[in-house]
Amino acid sequence: MPSPLVEILQRVHREFAPNTDGEVATYIPELGRADPNTFGIAVATVDGEVFSVGDATQMFTIQSISKPLVYGMALEERGKDAVLAHVGVEPSGNPFNSVSVDPRTSRPFNPMVNAGAIVTTALLDATEPGERLARILETFGDFAGRELVVDDHVLASERATGDRNRALAWLMRSFGMLENDVHEVVDDYFGQCSVLVTCRDLAMIGATLANDGENPLTGRRAIDPQHVTSVLSVMSTCGMYDNAGEWLYNVGLPAKSGVAGGVLAVLPGQFGIAVFSPPLDEQGNSVRGVQACERLSHELRLHLLGRSAGIRSVVRRTLRGDDLRSNRVRTLSQEDVLAARRRAICLHELQGDLFFATAEKVHREVVTDLDQVEIVVIDFTHVSSIDEAALSVLDGLAAKLTESGRTVVAVCEADGGIGSKLTQTETIFVDADVALEWCEDRLLGQVSAAPTGDMHAELERFDLLDGLGDAELAAIERAIDVRSVEAGTVVIREGQDADELFFLLAGRISVMLPLDADGGGRSRRLATLGSGIAFGEMAMLDEARRSADVVCDERSTIASLSLTSLQQLEATYPAIGHTVRTNLARLLARRLRSANAQIRALAR
Amino acid sequence: MPSPLVEILQRVHREFAPNTDGEVATYIPELGRADPNTFGIAVATVDGEVFSVGDATQMFTIQSISKPLVYGMALEERGKDAVLAHVGVEPSGNPFNSVSVDPRTSRPFNPMVNAGAIVTTALLDATEPGERLARILETFGDFAGRELVVDDHVLASERATGDRNRALAWLMRSFGMLENDVHEVVDDYFGQCSVLVTCRDLAMIGATLANDGENPLTGRRAIDPQHVTSVLSVMSTCGMYDNAGEWLYNVGLPAKSGVAGGVLAVLPGQFGIAVFSPPLDEQGNSVRGVQACERLSHELRLHLLGRSAGIRSVVRRTLRGDDLRSNRVRTLSQEDVLAARRRAICLHELQGDLFFATAEKVHREVVTDLDQVEIVVIDFTHVSSIDEAALSVLDGLAAKLTESGRTVVAVCEADGGIGSKLTQTETIFVDADVALEWCEDRLLGQVSAAPTGDMHAELERFDLLDGLGDAELAAIERAIDVRSVEAGTVVIREGQDADELFFLLAGRISVMLPLDADGGGRSRRLATLGSGIAFGEMAMLDEARRSADVVCDERSTIASLSLTSLQQLEATYPAIGHTVRTNLARLLARRLRSANAQIRALAR
Repeated sequence: MPSPLVEILQRVHREFAPNTDGEVATYIPELGRADPNTFGIAVATVDGEVFSVGDATQMFTIQSISKPLVYGMALEERGKDAVLAHVGVEPSGNPFNSVSVDPRTSRPFNPMVNAGAIVTTALLDATEPGERLARILETFGDFAGRELVVDDHVLASERATGDRNRALAWLMRSFGMLENDVHEVVDDYFGQCSVLVTCRDLAMIGATLANDGENPLTGRRAIDPQHVTSVLSVMSTCGMYDNAGEWLYNVGLPAKSGVAGGVLAVLPGQFGIAVFSPPLDEQGNSVRGVQACERLSHELRLHLLGRSAGIRSVVRRTLRGDDLRSNRVRTLSQEDVLAARRRAICLHELQGDLFFATAEKVHREVVTDLDQVEIVVIDFTHVSSIDEAALSVLDGLAAKLTESGRTVVAVCEADGGIGSKLTQTETIFVDADVALEWCEDRLLGQVSAAPTGDMHAELERFDLLDGLGDAELAAIERAIDVRSVEAGTVVIREGQDADELFFLLAGRISVMLPLDADGGGRSRRLATLGSGIAFGEMAMLDEARRSADVVCDERSTIASLSLTSLQQLEATYPAIGHTVRTNLARLLARRLRSANAQIRALAR
Repeated sequence: MPSPLVEILQRVHREFAPNTDGEVATYIPELGRADPNTFGIAVATVDGEVFSVGDATQMFTIQSISKPLVYGMALEERGKDAVLAHVGVEPSGNPFNSVSVDPRTSRPFNPMVNAGAIVTTALLDATEPGERLARILETFGDFAGRELVVDDHVLASERATGDRNRALAWLMRSFGMLENDVHEVVDDYFGQCSVLVTCRDLAMIGATLANDGENPLTGRRAIDPQHVTSVLSVMSTCGMYDNAGEWLYNVGLPAKSGVAGGVLAVLPGQFGIAVFSPPLDEQGNSVRGVQACERLSHELRLHLLGRSAGIRSVVRRTLRGDDLRSNRVRTLSQEDVLAARRRAICLHELQGDLFFATAEKVHREVVTDLDQVEIVVIDFTHVSSIDEAALSVLDGLAAKLTESGRTVVAVCEADGGIGSKLTQTETIFVDADVALEWCEDRLLGQVSAAPTGDMHAELERFDLLDGLGDAELAAIERAIDVRSVEAGTVVIREGQDADELFFLLAGRISVMLPLDADGGGRSRRLATLGSGIAFGEMAMLDEARRSADVVCDERSTIASLSLTSLQQLEATYPAIGHTVRTNLARLLARRLRSANAQIRALAR
C-alpha cells in the first residue's frame, strides 16, 4: 500500500505540469538549454524515506541553493560573530544580483543575495587553489548522502558570463568585506553554483536540515544543530528573493530557490521538499516550484506557524507503586510489608521530545503529588530527544527532590544517551523492572541480601505448604532432595519435562524467557525469587514441559520434590493434596489479582 | 516546589533591571509620564499556567500590540483575500510611522506599520459610532480572558497629538485603501492603542495565540485557528519594526512591540511571553523587552527553527491480538479457536498530535505488517489533536484497508471528538477493551449470541469440572440450585460473604469493580463471561468477601453451589476436592500466563 504522499505528489504534479508560464534562465547560456517541460517533485522525511514523482532523478545545477549550505559552513568555520560582521541577515527588498549594501555597516544585506553569498564563500579559508571547492563538494555530499560533482559545462558558462559577480566581489573587497584573492573566490563561487543535484538529492539535503543537520540515511553530520537554526532563519526571511513576507505568509517554510529551476523547502523535524522545473517567474523563482510548494503547504498543513506542537502528552503516565510492581516474587510476609509502603514509589513515564516547555510540564506534574513519595522513578525509555534547556530543568528537579530527602531514579540507557547527561540523578537503570525491584528492596530494607550458604529456610515458611501439620511437613522433609548450586547454574531449562517442584531455601534465582528460537542467547527476565519461594510448582498441574529457564543469580540452596514422590505423599496424607493445591490456587489468585491491577494501570 | 520558570524569570529580571538604556516615548505626552524603572516579565503556557516577576500587574496601554489582534479580526470579518487587497505582508524596512506604500499596488506594506494598521481597523465594519471599538474591546477581552478598558487620559492625549496618523488615514483614503469615515476610523484606532493591559494580560493574549486562538483558561475562542497562522506570520516578518531579519535570526519568535514599553512574543503550541519596560531603543522597541526575549529564547531554546518536532513517537505501540486480549472470559474451547486466530487483530495506539507527517508515519507503520491481519484497531485515546491533513491521510488509509477486505475499528470518543471526524471508519468504540471483545467475537463468528433462555449448558462443559466422573457430576447436579435472572440483576455484590460458587448455564454476565467508595455508581468492567464459565469460584479459596459486583448483561440462567454443599460433596467424593481444585489452579495459571503476556506487551 503506497504512502499517501505518493498519491498527493502525483496529483500536485498533474495539476501544475500543464502550466507553461515563466521563462528558462538564459543569462548563463548553458542554463538556457534546459527543457521547460522538465518537472520533478521529491519529499524526504527525517527518518529517511524519499518519495518522488516526475523528473526527480534528472540532474541540474544547484545554483543559489548552494548559498545557505555555504553559509552554514562559514558559521561552522568562522563562528557566528565573525560571519555577522561581514554579512547581515536583513531582507533587502532588492533583486538577487543588485549592487547595494546596508548603508550603516557596508555589509551586504544577507547571504542569499549574490554579494552576500560571495562574501560568505570568501569566509571559508583556503591555503591552496581548489581546496575550498573540494571542501564545499564534500559538505554538500554529506548533506545529500552521496558524492556530488561539478558540471564543467555550466561552470565554464558561469565563468564566461560572470562579470557582474566579479564586479560585486571587487565592490565587497573595496568595502573591506572580502580580504582574499577575488579571482579564486569568484571561481569557487561559480563552482558551488555548478554542483549537479537531482530533486531527490535536494529533498535529502532538506531532510538533513530538518533533522538538525544529520543526514537521515547515512547518519553523518553535515552541520552543527545550532547553525541549522541560523541557516533556516535566513532562508525564512531572505530565501525567496524579494518576496520574503509573502512566502512566509503563504507557504510558511524556510526555503531557497536557484535559477536552474530548483526550489528547496524545509519543515524542521519533518521533511525536506524539493521541486525542479526550469521556467522562472519575474523574481527568479521556479514557477511550478512556487506553486507546488504552496499547494503542498496548504494541503498538508505544513505552515511553520500553523501547528501547535502540543506539550500535553509528555507525561505518558504516572503510576504509584501500588499500581505497578517488579517481577520479583515476594513471600506473603514481604508482600504485606510492601503493601503498606508501595505508595512511596512514584513512576513517571515520559515520551516524545523534551524541550523547555515539556520539561517544565514534567516538573509541574512530578511535584503535584509528592504525598508519601520517597522514591521518584523517571522513565526516559520513550523519550526521543532532550535538549539542554530540558536537561537543566530535570537536573534542577532531581536536585530539589534529593534536597527534600527523596531518592531520584532514572530509567534510560546509561552510556552515551540521556543517562550520561543527567548529572543530578545518582541511580540509573536500563529497565523499569530492575529499577522497581531496587525500589522495593529499599522499602524492605534489604538492599541485596548476602548469600548465607548455610542458613536453610524451614519448610514451614513456604506459603505453598501453609496449613500442613507436623506429620505432613516431616514426610515432605524426608521426600525432598537438598543441594547447593553455584551462581549461573541453570536449574530448569525451557522445554524439559516438568516432573519436579522446587523450594528455594537460600539464595536468589531468576526465571528467564529465552527470546531467540535458535538459541541465540538473548532472554528476558520474567521474575526473580528469593528464599522462601517455591518454583516449578506448575508441574503439579500436569504441565508437560517447562515454559522458561530458571537460572541462579547467586549461590543458592534448593530442595526438590519429584512429582512421583508428591503423588505418593498425597496418597498417604490426603491433607497434602487438598491443602497444597488450595495454597497453589490461592497464590495464583493473588498473583492474578496483582497482574490484573497492573494491566488496568498500564492500559490507562 | 516552584516551577523552574519562576527562578529563570527572576534571574533574567535581576540581570536586566539595572540597564537604564533607552528613552521613554514622549511623542504622546501621557506616555512620557511612565516610570522608566518599571519592569515586568510574564509567561503564560497553553495549559493556562501564568508565571510572572517584577511589575507584572502594572497597567499600561497596549499601543501597537493591538495591531496583530485587530488584523486577526479583519481576517475573520472580511476574509483573507479582501484584507490582502488592502494591506500587504512585506517588511518595509521603514520606520513604523513612515508615509510610504508599495509602489506596485498602493497598499501599505503591512498591517504592523501605522498606515497599514489604520487601513486594517477601517476594514472592520461599523454601522454606528462606538460599535467598532466596543467589538475590539470585546475581542481583546476574549484574548486576555478578562474584561479590558480604555485609558481615557491616554486616549485624549493620542487624539490631541495624532495629526500624523490622521494624515496617513487621509493618504490611504486617497489611494482607495480606506472607504470609511476617516475621523471615526482614526478615533477607533486611537482607542485600540489606548486599551489598558498588564504584563500578565499580554502573556495570556500570547498564550491564546499559541493555543490556536482559544484562551487556555476560559476556553473561549478569540480567533479562528487559520487566521492565527496569518497573524503570527506578519508578526514574524514585520512585528519588530525594521529589524525583522535580525529578530527572527536572534530570537526566532513571532513578536510585536508597543511604544508604551510592552513586548509580546509567541511560541506556538507552548507559550505567550510578555515584557513591560517603558524605555525604548532607536527602533521603538522596549530595550529590556528585547533583551529579556533574547535571553529567554537562548536559554530556554525557544527559537522557532531551533527544535525539531519529532515524528518518531506517534505510534505509542503496536500490538497483535496474541499480546492483548479483552476482559471477556472465554471457555477453553473458545480460547483454542482464538489462540489460532488472534494474530488477525492488530492494534495501533497513537499518541500526541496528528498532523501530516505523523499521520503519514502512522500510515507507514500500519501497512508495514499486514500479514494475517483482518481487523485493524486504531486507538486514538492518547491523541491530543488532529488536523485536516492528518484526517485525510487516516481516512484514506481506512478506505484502502476496507477495500483490501479488512475491517477498521477506531477507539475514541464518538461524539464531537475525533470519532465524529473519521468518515471511513464504520465501527467506533469508546474503550479498547470493548473494541477487542468485539474483534474476538467476530473471530469466533458469534457477533452477539441471542439469549437462548431455555438452552441449558451441560455441567460437563465447564472447565472447572473437567475430569470428573458421571457419579461426581450427578452428585453436583443434585446439589446445585438453578434459577433464571433478568438483565441488570446483581448476582454478587462487592463485600458480601463469599459462600457459594456459580455456573453460568446461559446468558452473559459482567464482573464490575465499583469505583466510588460512597456508592456513587461509577464502575469499571473487569471481565465479561458467557455460558460455560464458572464465577465466584474464588470462594473455594476461603476468601471471606466478594471483591467485585457481578451483573447480568442479559437474561441468564445460573446454577449456584454453596460452599457447605461443596464441602459435603468433597467428603463423600474425594476426587471432587482434588480435581476441582487442580482445575481451578490450572484455570488461574492459564489466566495468569495470559495476564503476564499482556503486562509484557503493555510495558514495552
